Amino acid sequence: MNFQSKFLIRSRSLRSLLCVGLDPDYSKLPEVVQRSPESLFRFCREIIDATAPYAVAYKPNIAFFEVFGSSGIRQFEKVIGHLKSNYPQIPIVADIKRGDLDNTARQYARYYFGDLHVDSLTLSPYMGLDTLRPFLEYQDRLVFWLCLTSNPDSIQFQKKRFSETGRTLYEEVAYVSSSISPLNLGLVVGATNPSELEILRKQNPDRIFLIPGFGAQGAKLGDLLPVCGRYSLINSSRGIHFASNGLDFATRAGEEAEKIHKMMQAKFSFL
Amino acid sequence: MNFQSKFLIRSRSLRSLLCVGLDPDYSKLPEVVQRSPESLFRFCREIIDATAPYAVAYKPNIAFFEVFGSSGIRQFEKVIGHLKSNYPQIPIVADIKRGDLDNTARQYARYYFGDLHVDSLTLSPYMGLDTLRPFLEYQDRLVFWLCLTSNPDSIQFQKKRFSETGRTLYEEVAYVSSSISPLNLGLVVGATNPSELEILRKQNPDRIFLIPGFGAQGAKLGDLLPVCGRYSLINSSRGIHFASNGLDFATRAGEEAEKIHKMMQAKFSFL
Repeated sequence: MNFQSKFLIRSRSLRSLLCVGLDPDYSKLPEVVQRSPESLFRFCREIIDATAPYAVAYKPNIAFFEVFGSSGIRQFEKVIGHLKSNYPQIPIVADIKRGDLDNTARQYARYYFGDLHVDSLTLSPYMGLDTLRPFLEYQDRLVFWLCLTSNPDSIQFQKKRFSETGRTLYEEVAYVSSSISPLNLGLVVGATNPSELEILRKQNPDRIFLIPGFGAQGAKLGDLLPVCGRYSLINSSRGIHFASNGLDFATRAGEEAEKIHKMMQAKFSFL
Repeated sequence: MNFQSKFLIRSRSLRSLLCVGLDPDYSKLPEVVQRSPESLFRFCREIIDATAPYAVAYKPNIAFFEVFGSSGIRQFEKVIGHLKSNYPQIPIVADIKRGDLDNTARQYARYYFGDLHVDSLTLSPYMGLDTLRPFLEYQDRLVFWLCLTSNPDSIQFQKKRFSETGRTLYEEVAYVSSSISPLNLGLVVGATNPSELEILRKQNPDRIFLIPGFGAQGAKLGDLLPVCGRYSLINSSRGIHFASNGLDFATRAGEEAEKIHKMMQAKFSFL
């Protein structure tokens, strides 16, 4: 089953767009978890088990594993394994933001799509479309290209306008992406840009948007849902999994996910 | 000692700008190496030991290790360890092309600059300057921002011109980088763009350029040296380490590196 079908089935059955991000920043883990072996994996596993009823998708960010080198990556692999064994119906977005020449990109594609078999991943578009091609050979998967990000300095390059096309850089990324099927290429559009998001959505009605920046980064659900449409994953990471750093961290994460889940359900019929 | 000093001392003592790239694409390794345990590490170690007399810097690309997940990253760590133990005078450029939000970028900075203690690394500028800050806290290291890359589709975004500033995207990246000391921020400028390289060099006389695309990707040394100046690392990867895939692979790599080394030495006085 391709990514879009898996996502739509899950999203419709939950009547939600909630993507649960997994950013296991070691310094912010509950003490009891910090002291245990494979603390990143243990933390993610407990968060996953507590939030799975409300997760349309999971988005682990590899940086929080990579910081521990090979031992961190081994835990990342165990997190993916846990998700695939126990929750095969929930699509995985590996948040890796890679981007390199064709032959090099092929290595990343082989590991994430081939070996780990994640459903989708994020890439940076800076180098252009040819760096995307090795990933597109996996026809049942989807790449999310960074388009408009939620950080302050996204204005520095992304929001500047090209004279030749009249489009800003992020609009140009969306425009170039329109040569690729929405089954294979989605866009990352930060929640901190609701007016830009609305225009992008009108121009790309059936392309899946991955929308970070909800919750911890500040955007409100009420502003987002009317503009983002059904083909969106709205991500919350720290707001859910760092809801508590006590012994009740997993329970509290589950409650937080349920709260967002219910807010989304209440609005879902309007999507 | 900061990156620039280490680089200049090494470059002046060798009278060369040669950066030896390490792209241990498993499918292209000599059969005898493919069959041995930790084949990526073994290959890189032998290539390093054969080319060290001619290497101003080494640039391992992590994708060729990451393709094997945690076991590949463990070999990457051993390659870095081998370089640091045996060739502490040769600066290391970790070619990772990452780029993420501040808190996430901090994880990458901690691993590569903190734990692995590499001298420099490559990053993608798409998300803007704030994603660079956690790396700049390591004041004796240097980041190479992707500026103008050597792949065909680099024209898609990088060579388009902004109406507001009159600069192309890659020129804008170079412009924004001018707010950061050349001791801490260099630029990746593909060798396949000699006229653009010449202009960038004039505008940035003392910023270190990392120049891929020489050799396997086609650019000629005679065209490059007159324009790139002393503050450059000219990278060759496959042209050196895949010179032979027989039993003589390391010897042949050493010979190939020596050949480029001598060509550079012959021209170095003009730099």
